[in-house]
Amino acid sequence: MDAAEFRRRGKEMVDYVADYLENIEKRPVYPDLEPGYLRSLIPNEAPLEPESYEDIIKDVERVIMPGVTHWHSPYFFAYFPAASSYPAMVADMLCGAIGCIGFSWAASPACTELETVMLDWLGKMLQLPECFIAGTHGRGGGVIQGTASEATLMSLLAARCKAVRRVQAINAKKSESEILSKLVAYTSDQAHSSVERAALIGAVMMRKVPTDNHYAVRKEMLKKMVEEDKAAGLIPFYFCATLGTTPSCENMWMHIDAAYAGSAFVCPEFRPLLNGVEFADSFNFNPHKWLLVNFDCSAMWVKERADIIGHWQIPLGRRFRSLKMWFVFRMYGLKGLQAHIRKQVALAKEFESLVRADKRFEICAEVVLGLVCFRLKGSNELNQELLKRITKSREIHLVPCQLSGRFVLRFAICARSTESHHIQQAWQHITQLTFDALVYAGSVSSVCKTCLGVNSVFRVVELRLNYFAKNVLRTL
Amino acid sequence: MDAAEFRRRGKEMVDYVADYLENIEKRPVYPDLEPGYLRSLIPNEAPLEPESYEDIIKDVERVIMPGVTHWHSPYFFAYFPAASSYPAMVADMLCGAIGCIGFSWAASPACTELETVMLDWLGKMLQLPECFIAGTHGRGGGVIQGTASEATLMSLLAARCKAVRRVQAINAKKSESEILSKLVAYTSDQAHSSVERAALIGAVMMRKVPTDNHYAVRKEMLKKMVEEDKAAGLIPFYFCATLGTTPSCENMWMHIDAAYAGSAFVCPEFRPLLNGVEFADSFNFNPHKWLLVNFDCSAMWVKERADIIGHWQIPLGRRFRSLKMWFVFRMYGLKGLQAHIRKQVALAKEFESLVRADKRFEICAEVVLGLVCFRLKGSNELNQELLKRITKSREIHLVPCQLSGRFVLRFAICARSTESHHIQQAWQHITQLTFDALVYAGSVSSVCKTCLGVNSVFRVVELRLNYFAKNVLRTL
Repeated sequence: MDAAEFRRRGKEMVDYVADYLENIEKRPVYPDLEPGYLRSLIPNEAPLEPESYEDIIKDVERVIMPGVTHWHSPYFFAYFPAASSYPAMVADMLCGAIGCIGFSWAASPACTELETVMLDWLGKMLQLPECFIAGTHGRGGGVIQGTASEATLMSLLAARCKAVRRVQAINAKKSESEILSKLVAYTSDQAHSSVERAALIGAVMMRKVPTDNHYAVRKEMLKKMVEEDKAAGLIPFYFCATLGTTPSCENMWMHIDAAYAGSAFVCPEFRPLLNGVEFADSFNFNPHKWLLVNFDCSAMWVKERADIIGHWQIPLGRRFRSLKMWFVFRMYGLKGLQAHIRKQVALAKEFESLVRADKRFEICAEVVLGLVCFRLKGSNELNQELLKRITKSREIHLVPCQLSGRFVLRFAICARSTESHHIQQAWQHITQLTFDALVYAGSVSSVCKTCLGVNSVFRVVELRLNYFAKNVLRTL
Repeated sequence: MDAAEFRRRGKEMVDYVADYLENIEKRPVYPDLEPGYLRSLIPNEAPLEPESYEDIIKDVERVIMPGVTHWHSPYFFAYFPAASSYPAMVADMLCGAIGCIGFSWAASPACTELETVMLDWLGKMLQLPECFIAGTHGRGGGVIQGTASEATLMSLLAARCKAVRRVQAINAKKSESEILSKLVAYTSDQAHSSVERAALIGAVMMRKVPTDNHYAVRKEMLKKMVEEDKAAGLIPFYFCATLGTTPSCENMWMHIDAAYAGSAFVCPEFRPLLNGVEFADSFNFNPHKWLLVNFDCSAMWVKERADIIGHWQIPLGRRFRSLKMWFVFRMYGLKGLQAHIRKQVALAKEFESLVRADKRFEICAEVVLGLVCFRLKGSNELNQELLKRITKSREIHLVPCQLSGRFVLRFAICARSTESHHIQQAWQHITQLTFDALVYAGSVSSVCKTCLGVNSVFRVVELRLNYFAKNVLRTL
């Protein structure tokens, strides 16, 4: 493909993309196939001779599309939103063309510098404390990570390094491995699995702080654990917090992970949820979830850039991802971003009202942002049966979660194109299937084990669910 | 920007991208500006109201392009190639539109399955041993990582986990931290800095094996170090090898990192350099360097998928990156990919001949693939002066490296669009500046310190240089 063919094919692809997104709701939101479906549809080896573009693009509909879970369908309410917007897609084309590998300033100055300034723009939109803004003289600043998992790992590694240095400054004889064996990190027992994974990678102990019945870490509980650990000769050094937690002890690095919720803080009415961030050493959220900047773009800020210099990220190379932010922030403006968040929160409230109006259902956690956790009053089996029917129908897509041992359905407002009538239709669909599920449950004495088995394919992704419930966000 | 505007702007961007790449050699390859240039060119805050697309696209030329190091200019010979091709760019547009977050099979089956099959295709193109191919029943298989650094880290973590389990199987009383404190990893003293970093992150000791005067790890030296360490009660568990090294002890995980060179193995004449890969537990190279698949796309294979299940990668989410591979492999065909590699190797040979024909210069390492390491016979200062002039002229772009304490210029064939006449012109330019540098050196008794200072901006990126020299590749 030379430049002339690219001009033709690239424009065809622009139309294909627009057609795909404009007509996405006509496609079944979730694929109807078995694992391993794809291998038999394509050859076992790469072709020796070049193939034509026509053949490849035909295969997109034949091979790829039947196996796609359509995250941007307005009937997709599973997991969490994956940001998608046209300005981000146009910017990504430019990013691909420039194709610089931004591992140092000289490797492409614009790539390094636009990123710093965009993180400042975004930090100001979130009203982050001045200490997180790089500006021209600040000691803090932001960096784009691929995902929140990487941000958590980076913060833990920076904290580990600092802790080792601090202990050795007092007692130079202590070996690094001796110190490492005594470091303890803490996080909520409701925290995302990536937090535990960061500790595993960093080879440090991690203790999960039991939460209260509002899924919140209580200050007293954390303090008690820290004191016990200190008394046992251990060294508390890191706490990965949910929003709004304040630190309970000195010398501990506090990282706040607001992967999903963070985007909402561009709206002043949600900003109080972030109060306490001034006590954190690092803060992270994913514009690629809810702020219209296509994946990957996870924003991380630190108070002291010096703490993570040399640790900015795991990979050495990086794409020119700040272009996406620049295009999105300018084409939407702050007001446009706020409107997007508010619209989606309103849609969640609309769904909540529908659920509350039906006495057969209950709401399982306060609806603060764009997620509604609900269930049929009754057994876990009954709710599993309902979800099984929803999934099988492939008209809408939801995934479950566990809350205090209860099987709960999550209804997340995801696609940018979701409107009120999609919510209404989704609810109508759910109530219809509810009828079937209740009839089924009534007709069989107990729900059989196979129903449970089928659901195992939707392994419960431990989403950062707890961030959404207001109770969790209460400052300790 | 709605779908209609995206159709228009997206197509304009396709033309912008094609124009950019068709005319890239008219731009100075390296920017002429000072760190911090960008901040003053744009506002301090995001706009409140949306801006027009025209304003943004105008700013691309005003703000971004002056700060871009043009990696795809045919006059860019710095660092290493960053792959770029039109089929990859078209595929990336599709990837952005589908916008699924592939963290599990159900999250988008096509994303998981195409990746597995594409890694099989690529593995077969490289004639990897059967044990690395997933197929329908294999225990091995491949995965796309963001970068080689991540692949190295993943392999080290898998090896660490296996080693801890192995020791505890024999002696259940040993604590994990006790075992960790005794684990030792090894790598060449010429290895990329990311290898050392992986050990730092994983909190294990790493010993650098001194290389011989061909920059090669000698089997005897590694064996000696391993035996010393065992005698001292330590537990050797991991060796990150350069190409063609064979393992010297059991129970050690061997990872082979061929980040740049790996692409060349699609050509049978270069494949012998990979002999010995059958002894490795994991192997990695970057199609995003030299195989025309735009960044990021680092291919990693393991013999036992079970070893890295749960460790496939650091981030949880992932883009649908295999689409790029699928488009590129099919539109080029194996023959097209081979032709690309062979053309670039021939260009390196052409440059080598030019250097060898000029008695003032010397070649510093055998030219095996696309990199030529050369220098002026004489002092490091003289070579630094020459590079300073090259950089300042901004007609071509090179970076230096250190080889055995000598300041060496690296000339890497990078852009897909580089042709013989660019090589000829680059050499003409270098010889002209050589004349100036020699005159300058003759006119001043010793090169002043500031010349050295200026060069510090091009911090010597420890490239995987050593992989290129044939001597290094010799099987132990």
